[in-house]
Amino acid sequence: MMLDRGLVFMSDTRTNAGLDNISTFRKMAIWEDPGERSITLMSAGNLATTQAVVSLLDERSKSPEDRTPSLLGVPSMFQAARMVADTLREVIAQHADTGQRADSTFNATLILGGQIKGGPHRLFLIYPEGNFIEAAKDTPFFQIGETKYGRPILVRAYDPQMSFEAAMKLLLVSFDSTLKANLTVGAPFDFHCYETDSLKTGWTGRVASDDPYFQSVSERWGDALRDALDMLPDFALTSKPDPDAL
Amino acid sequence: MMLDRGLVFMSDTRTNAGLDNISTFRKMAIWEDPGERSITLMSAGNLATTQAVVSLLDERSKSPEDRTPSLLGVPSMFQAARMVADTLREVIAQHADTGQRADSTFNATLILGGQIKGGPHRLFLIYPEGNFIEAAKDTPFFQIGETKYGRPILVRAYDPQMSFEAAMKLLLVSFDSTLKANLTVGAPFDFHCYETDSLKTGWTGRVASDDPYFQSVSERWGDALRDALDMLPDFALTSKPDPDAL
Repeated sequence: MMLDRGLVFMSDTRTNAGLDNISTFRKMAIWEDPGERSITLMSAGNLATTQAVVSLLDERSKSPEDRTPSLLGVPSMFQAARMVADTLREVIAQHADTGQRADSTFNATLILGGQIKGGPHRLFLIYPEGNFIEAAKDTPFFQIGETKYGRPILVRAYDPQMSFEAAMKLLLVSFDSTLKANLTVGAPFDFHCYETDSLKTGWTGRVASDDPYFQSVSERWGDALRDALDMLPDFALTSKPDPDAL
Repeated sequence: MMLDRGLVFMSDTRTNAGLDNISTFRKMAIWEDPGERSITLMSAGNLATTQAVVSLLDERSKSPEDRTPSLLGVPSMFQAARMVADTLREVIAQHADTGQRADSTFNATLILGGQIKGGPHRLFLIYPEGNFIEAAKDTPFFQIGETKYGRPILVRAYDPQMSFEAAMKLLLVSFDSTLKANLTVGAPFDFHCYETDSLKTGWTGRVASDDPYFQSVSERWGDALRDALDMLPDFALTSKPDPDAL
């Protein structure tokens, strides 16, 4: 999510290979060179694919003697997005090339955001085909994975001027709606709040399912929703039976 | 939706054969024999299939001299669900048998609800395969078609003791969330509120997109949601950078 004051990232940690085989894996990776850049990557889709992408990017960034450009070397966020997108496409192509068949595809979708010195903070959504789109004022946030249940509250309550604290609340409420409807999404939630022009990792952490704040928000959000609905006027059932309906 | 006081049905009217080809069609049909029974059917999926199902059921119910049992003749809601499910399966099988290929499948899903004298009011979800499930206390409402965007508010705000007027408001708010996110769902909305043991069609009608009540609820719901979120405490960003995150 893109705010005036920076970027807020949140990812769940549930992965599954069928309903009877779920695990917890981090889906957020951060690369930083303090004073120079901070780049965050979140992933959805095939875990083997996304882990391979992160590992490849990570290896490159840890071999500075290597001439291969890395996320810590690219000059702009646009170049970073291109590098990540190319890596994603290569990994998917590699797996597909073996001719193996899998029940699910090797596809994955990524969200990449951050800032590199000399440029603004930017946010990208990267498709498995290796192309990508950038967040702008009209579409200031991206979702990947199970996006639908949590979307209505994001659309309604997003405000570019909101604080990190309010944005975190909004994202947790959005995830909570998804959690209640889809077993393939689950706590804990990893987060990163990046402050514009800080050029270093900001607030990061993990919100567990038994986190007192998360539990309280989850419980109180139900009441708050019901109260909000109560405040709206009821529908007036004055209509007569409609002959067309029969 | 199943309430203590009866059943509330609501359907949109948008159908599409591609984003560039949308139309308005009624997706709700009602059969009644006042004092004896009232049965409501809603459909999602292939329009040719669902219209054929409704026409077949309709023809049967209008030829009382015919020995074929009809929705106006079956002795119970369970038998009504079986008849509708069989009809649906036959229609789908017929189309599939021709060997024609279509871009989309001929599948459809139905919601059937109502009451027949001597039995309780019941609500069924009928699958294209011709089997069906019944609503119960644990799952007191069904959705078909684009179900995800509108589900969180239903889960949170449903109350079996709510009035028809409040239930209508809830359904319109739920549809409004879907409307804002999926172009294949669109107003006007048809509705039917059936009162338990009335054994006749209750309040029916159509809510247009420019209906002043619907417009007001849609606008005020956004504000109400933001207010509700504001009332919850913000997240406290006290966490330190997480070394695992890097």
